[in-house]
Amino acid sequence: MKQIVQCVPNFSEGKDLEKIEKIITPLKNQPGFTLISYEPDQDYHRTVVTLIGEPEAMIEPLVRFFKEARDLIDMNVHQGEHARMGAVDVVPFIPIQNIKMSECTAYAKKLAEKVSSTLDLPVYLYANAATSPDRKSLPNIRKGEFEGMKEKIKTEPWLPDYGKNEIHPTFGVVAIGSRLPLLAYNIDLPTDDLTITGDYARAIRQSGGGFQFVQAGPVYLNERGHTQVTMNILNYQKNPIYRIFETVKMEALKHQLHVQSSEIVGLIPEKALIQSLDYYLERDQKPKTELSLKEIAELSREYLGLRDFTEEKIIEYYITGSES
Amino acid sequence: MKQIVQCVPNFSEGKDLEKIEKIITPLKNQPGFTLISYEPDQDYHRTVVTLIGEPEAMIEPLVRFFKEARDLIDMNVHQGEHARMGAVDVVPFIPIQNIKMSECTAYAKKLAEKVSSTLDLPVYLYANAATSPDRKSLPNIRKGEFEGMKEKIKTEPWLPDYGKNEIHPTFGVVAIGSRLPLLAYNIDLPTDDLTITGDYARAIRQSGGGFQFVQAGPVYLNERGHTQVTMNILNYQKNPIYRIFETVKMEALKHQLHVQSSEIVGLIPEKALIQSLDYYLERDQKPKTELSLKEIAELSREYLGLRDFTEEKIIEYYITGSES
Repeated sequence: MKQIVQCVPNFSEGKDLEKIEKIITPLKNQPGFTLISYEPDQDYHRTVVTLIGEPEAMIEPLVRFFKEARDLIDMNVHQGEHARMGAVDVVPFIPIQNIKMSECTAYAKKLAEKVSSTLDLPVYLYANAATSPDRKSLPNIRKGEFEGMKEKIKTEPWLPDYGKNEIHPTFGVVAIGSRLPLLAYNIDLPTDDLTITGDYARAIRQSGGGFQFVQAGPVYLNERGHTQVTMNILNYQKNPIYRIFETVKMEALKHQLHVQSSEIVGLIPEKALIQSLDYYLERDQKPKTELSLKEIAELSREYLGLRDFTEEKIIEYYITGSES
Repeated sequence: MKQIVQCVPNFSEGKDLEKIEKIITPLKNQPGFTLISYEPDQDYHRTVVTLIGEPEAMIEPLVRFFKEARDLIDMNVHQGEHARMGAVDVVPFIPIQNIKMSECTAYAKKLAEKVSSTLDLPVYLYANAATSPDRKSLPNIRKGEFEGMKEKIKTEPWLPDYGKNEIHPTFGVVAIGSRLPLLAYNIDLPTDDLTITGDYARAIRQSGGGFQFVQAGPVYLNERGHTQVTMNILNYQKNPIYRIFETVKMEALKHQLHVQSSEIVGLIPEKALIQSLDYYLERDQKPKTELSLKEIAELSREYLGLRDFTEEKIIEYYITGSES
């Protein structure tokens, strides 16, 4: 059986669609893997790309993608809601089928070596590929962001794993690594008050005393005119979506806010949705049957208010083929 | 101003009221502190005693209380729902007014020295008084319980801080320490199914991925014929009661269980209740006014379903005097 990974490069351009197209061109129509999606976000000024397929086949196209990003993005003039330190900001390899985490780490190192040697970019290895405990956490590496990395990268604890001890003047610096699937999940709040949305984020995130595997913060979406609790769920089995969604709903009642919708950025494993649907179906005493991906997507829209959500956002759609 | 602590000795007799009376007699009507309450629990086979007052005044009476417990309780025949390792199981000193944690630690050591030297009991210092990181956590020290401590106390990492390297044959061993106020909080589940109550406990406790400062487990109450999620909340400011109560309520809907009540064991600081009432009053758009302790107790019964709860369970009742 083939080795299948999910690879999710994030790059720092979310507005100029022409540039975005140029940057992702090397990832289109390649043998061995599929460009599943790319999702530009104007407020974040960032695009999340999702690839699924054989990791070996991704390496050379990814190097060409890095080159486009390096040539087209100038981080000195980049501003957005999302923390960032490089034109390509982060590239995780995620085991999906028939591949170990250690093998994903090896591919992360291979890519890191190539982009540093051929494009002169400094690279940090992060998450499971990290070379020290300090570097496991991406927010920890990225602290200071593009602007702060200029000095940070020269200090002993933060010398990069590959490349020179200075940022690339326009690209900045990138983190490449391997990790378990995480969920990028956002809950919409019908308010523009970042302070109270920040309170909800603190209530649910680990650093505020909340759920152990949740990193969360408040963000204002200019495009949509409201705030979100934006989060990464690092272990969706222990911190299922429904629990977080319902907790934020409960908190928001304090301010008479009725939470109606949320969104998944990128892809989500089928079982993360099933786990939450189980809660709602049992709660409402609905029959539990074998569900198609299409039905799972439909019920997820109904119960979690997932916006713009179809079966094409479920990882299994690309592995087992369309079931709809 | 006087130094005021709360001291909460727990001892392993919750059924024989005559024995319980004898054991606590040394703590009654003493100068310098007040025996606020003692709460025997038949299912736990354990009594929680609450003292408030000057720590210096508590030491000698506590030594006499230890002596009674040593003479009247035989741990070899003790069985109950609550983990335990000694006839007196644990004695924390908690700073309330005009006293530092380090001073509470000094009183913990003073008591430990006295009970080990005069009553021949082995003592572990725990929480803020711990002599190694391993000993900060009471569950960690107590692992193996009375039965397991016989061997454990002889092993290098678990030699006691005071006394001989063997348990007292009938008393066992005790933990004495200093810590911040914690809340002992239990949520009643209208079911006798320990498995699902265990699921709710896991959902909210830190070790299951839940709230950072919550230790929780399921327990069946023979006396009442239903289960509880029983918990300690180590930091009620970051993990307020209402959030935990509402999360368990939400989880329980999965099984069509409607949670109606909960209980505080021992005392609770006024501000822990205010924090939760703020949520409910704002949610229900009720006016927020200066509340008397009596009103706080009444609203807490209403919103958190606190059973058997009056202003006499609020710490401030004993410090500022009755406000009712």
